[in-house]
Amino acid sequence: MKINDKFFMKLAIDEAWKYQFLTYPNPSVGCVIVKGDSEILSIEAHKQAGQAHAEVNALKTAFLKYHPNDVIKTLNDSFDIHDYLKRKHNDFFNDCTIYVTLEPCNHVGKTPSCAQLLSELKPKRVVIAHEDINKEAKGGLETLEKASVKCELGCMKKEAYELLYPFIKWNSGSFIFYKMAQTINGTIDGGKISSNHALAYVHALRDRIDLLVIGGNTVRVDKPILDARHVIGRAPNVMIYSKRKIFDKDIPLFKVPNREVVISNDLFKLLDYKFVMIEGGYNLLDKLKEKVDFLVLIVTPKMRAGLNIENNMDIDFEIIHENFIGKDKLIYLKRK
Amino acid sequence: MKINDKFFMKLAIDEAWKYQFLTYPNPSVGCVIVKGDSEILSIEAHKQAGQAHAEVNALKTAFLKYHPNDVIKTLNDSFDIHDYLKRKHNDFFNDCTIYVTLEPCNHVGKTPSCAQLLSELKPKRVVIAHEDINKEAKGGLETLEKASVKCELGCMKKEAYELLYPFIKWNSGSFIFYKMAQTINGTIDGGKISSNHALAYVHALRDRIDLLVIGGNTVRVDKPILDARHVIGRAPNVMIYSKRKIFDKDIPLFKVPNREVVISNDLFKLLDYKFVMIEGGYNLLDKLKEKVDFLVLIVTPKMRAGLNIENNMDIDFEIIHENFIGKDKLIYLKRK
Repeated sequence: MKINDKFFMKLAIDEAWKYQFLTYPNPSVGCVIVKGDSEILSIEAHKQAGQAHAEVNALKTAFLKYHPNDVIKTLNDSFDIHDYLKRKHNDFFNDCTIYVTLEPCNHVGKTPSCAQLLSELKPKRVVIAHEDINKEAKGGLETLEKASVKCELGCMKKEAYELLYPFIKWNSGSFIFYKMAQTINGTIDGGKISSNHALAYVHALRDRIDLLVIGGNTVRVDKPILDARHVIGRAPNVMIYSKRKIFDKDIPLFKVPNREVVISNDLFKLLDYKFVMIEGGYNLLDKLKEKVDFLVLIVTPKMRAGLNIENNMDIDFEIIHENFIGKDKLIYLKRK
Repeated sequence: MKINDKFFMKLAIDEAWKYQFLTYPNPSVGCVIVKGDSEILSIEAHKQAGQAHAEVNALKTAFLKYHPNDVIKTLNDSFDIHDYLKRKHNDFFNDCTIYVTLEPCNHVGKTPSCAQLLSELKPKRVVIAHEDINKEAKGGLETLEKASVKCELGCMKKEAYELLYPFIKWNSGSFIFYKMAQTINGTIDGGKISSNHALAYVHALRDRIDLLVIGGNTVRVDKPILDARHVIGRAPNVMIYSKRKIFDKDIPLFKVPNREVVISNDLFKLLDYKFVMIEGGYNLLDKLKEKVDFLVLIVTPKMRAGLNIENNMDIDFEIIHENFIGKDKLIYLKRK
């Protein structure tokens, strides 16, 4: 296997995917720092909005690798880490290459500008997979080049684009994904999520999204709560996708405090929300597939007879990414 | 992400899996060489029986990283590379850690002893995931320790065991795997292998195995050739699993030169062969599941209505490994 820019960028992209969706409204970004030719110092990601950017996490970890007891270990605030590195870097990064999946930010927001920081640290090279699309934050490449830092743009751009895609949609309207759990042979009644890992992940998503959409039938039959209790998170607002507007209001989902529930079959309503998760099976997927950006499949490695595609339904996908979630698979698909 | 022994061993294991089955009758082995603390010099694997072992490929690539125009570049024969490195290493590996998924071999066979070579190169550490189980080849760890090379055994042993499992079975009897192609929702008629990548892989497997098993019904209906033409390989011997012994001998599989065809429903016959692939659907899998070591699924990311599990069939699996094969997935499963 070749150990080159693509190899290191792939590590950055894979690390970022671990936090996909969880960084909302920020993009999912990964960063790898390599000293000399191929000495890996750090593989880090941006983990949550308001917290340190990927570059800052990676710079801190890299610095600690050579200075394991340095005071930077105690710093968590981005402004503090920026300030500390600017004063104490002592040219440590001069022979380093920074691989980052997204152009370093150029503006001071909740966290200071990464492009500014890198300009002062003067790494040997900054390899960027994808340019920023955010008007406020972009210009990082220019800032770096003005500071005579050598930059390269476009390494694994396609893969970085898929990683960035939810953020692109959040910025221009809505990102809508469909979550489904199934067995390895595609049955959805046999694929009920049972692992704690997968449950916690779904609840973490519910904690982040603006709206959860669910079919009327599921509400009537399964009577779910649809909250985020497994991560002690916020229960999302819910839209019940249904023509029939009458529901038993004793169903638990109606009783969650501080939650709005809309009952509607008007898909235009989805566009009022930036980040939407739909939970359902094949029938609802077939109805809504034109509106869906990603299909997120949780696949449990069992074979079971059971509910699968019933009538004709042909959808071709591309696999965008996949992770393990405990013993189960998490597969991100995009319609071709 | 932590950059530690496990991180590097995982790279070695993943690289080895790319050649799983293709190294038969040798084990699939990966090797990563790291200089200093985390400078990755090479990620290599054993690719085919008779060719260089993983360690030798990795040592050669690592040496070339620092000596890009060295004459070692022109050497491919294992004895030549061993001999050259012993004479010319110039202590290059003294600050290197060698990560290898299997204990380095201790005997001189088609290729010379890797333990012997490493003893002379004197790396800083040799980290071994799994001990050798081959009587002839084992003892490498002892040889290394006698030469005062620091060794550690057991890093990612469970993962290395799964990687080694076919080899363990080849050594003690038979390894039997079941190959099935399906869509992402489990239909097997919608999952016909169409990509050239996947086709070539299946043909490469056919070129290696001792016996291909196929159901009588498939032979009657599909009339397949079951050769390895896509890799210009050897067509395997075939066992048609069928109670009814009468077949139309004009079916192409009977006309392949130098091929034996057995028609039988006696599963004990499988144990006469070391390396067996069964190709089929759910029904045959359900019948033969007790005999199967691995299920190898080729999953194409489409959703299609079609043939799936028909009656009751409950199998729980563990995902052992997975790769991409072009745009499709290759998933290795083991029954729980």
